[in-house]
Amino acid sequence: MTEEKTGNRTVNKTGNETENKTRTGTGETIFADAGALGDPIEETAAFAPRFNADGLIPAVATDAGDGRLLMLAYMNADALKRTIETGEAWYWSRSRGSLWRKGETSGHTQQVVALRVDCDQDAVELVVEQAGPACHTARRSCFYREVRPDGNGGAVLAFTD
Amino acid sequence: MTEEKTGNRTVNKTGNETENKTRTGTGETIFADAGALGDPIEETAAFAPRFNADGLIPAVATDAGDGRLLMLAYMNADALKRTIETGEAWYWSRSRGSLWRKGETSGHTQQVVALRVDCDQDAVELVVEQAGPACHTARRSCFYREVRPDGNGGAVLAFTD
Repeated sequence: MTEEKTGNRTVNKTGNETENKTRTGTGETIFADAGALGDPIEETAAFAPRFNADGLIPAVATDAGDGRLLMLAYMNADALKRTIETGEAWYWSRSRGSLWRKGETSGHTQQVVALRVDCDQDAVELVVEQAGPACHTARRSCFYREVRPDGNGGAVLAFTD
Repeated sequence: MTEEKTGNRTVNKTGNETENKTRTGTGETIFADAGALGDPIEETAAFAPRFNADGLIPAVATDAGDGRLLMLAYMNADALKRTIETGEAWYWSRSRGSLWRKGETSGHTQQVVALRVDCDQDAVELVVEQAGPACHTARRSCFYREVRPDGNGGAVLAFTD
């Protein structure tokens, strides 16, 4: 992924922006500019999430209880900002084209215990207290099928949950 | 994400393709066509991974020992096929534009204990035995920084590993 080099804001070592914040989408951004960091992106204390060409970043939710993987979804800048500000998981629904508070219809909300970002800041992890099942199919995790050889050089899925 | 409706192959309930396989990229595909499934994609036993517009699918690696998240990377069809066939994790490097066997230079390989797919088959999980650290920064996991409030309405990263 190519880093964006637009803008000339700088970020100091505590992650505070030293010039005016810019606007992204519908709200003022609280994020640093990945193209204007003083440190390598892997070693900076500035939060400079890198959204893809569609303005999205993958978000992996893991269970605060046992650490296991629950689901993978996407956030735009607004969803990430709301998640930080409210402590509840918000995502961007690609199929509906709208912001989505996890559990807003099902009641299966996610309280965010910790939010982490990966080395190159193009993925986040939400450590969550999951109310009910994480998956819309009512399974605990979305990853309930295992890929196995079918004996003919292909692969088949086995349900494990 | 819009499902691709191209092709007219059908897949029976055991996941075996009943018509000729088509070619994708550099190798014959071993995957079913997500647009031609008899069952809903959440309940089928056919492995019909849905790659994005760039031909990629996100792959989350978790530790076979404690279940915790190690990294998120991307696979194209070839990387996924090689991973299934060899039992070692292969990815697509977006920065280098090439296939990448995890650990081929660092020695930090990933033996795949289980490969899972999510409900709508647009993400996979690799449960791996990780040799050495998963992250290129030599940390155990790529998610070694936590996003925290900076006290000024913004966010800052705290190193937790």
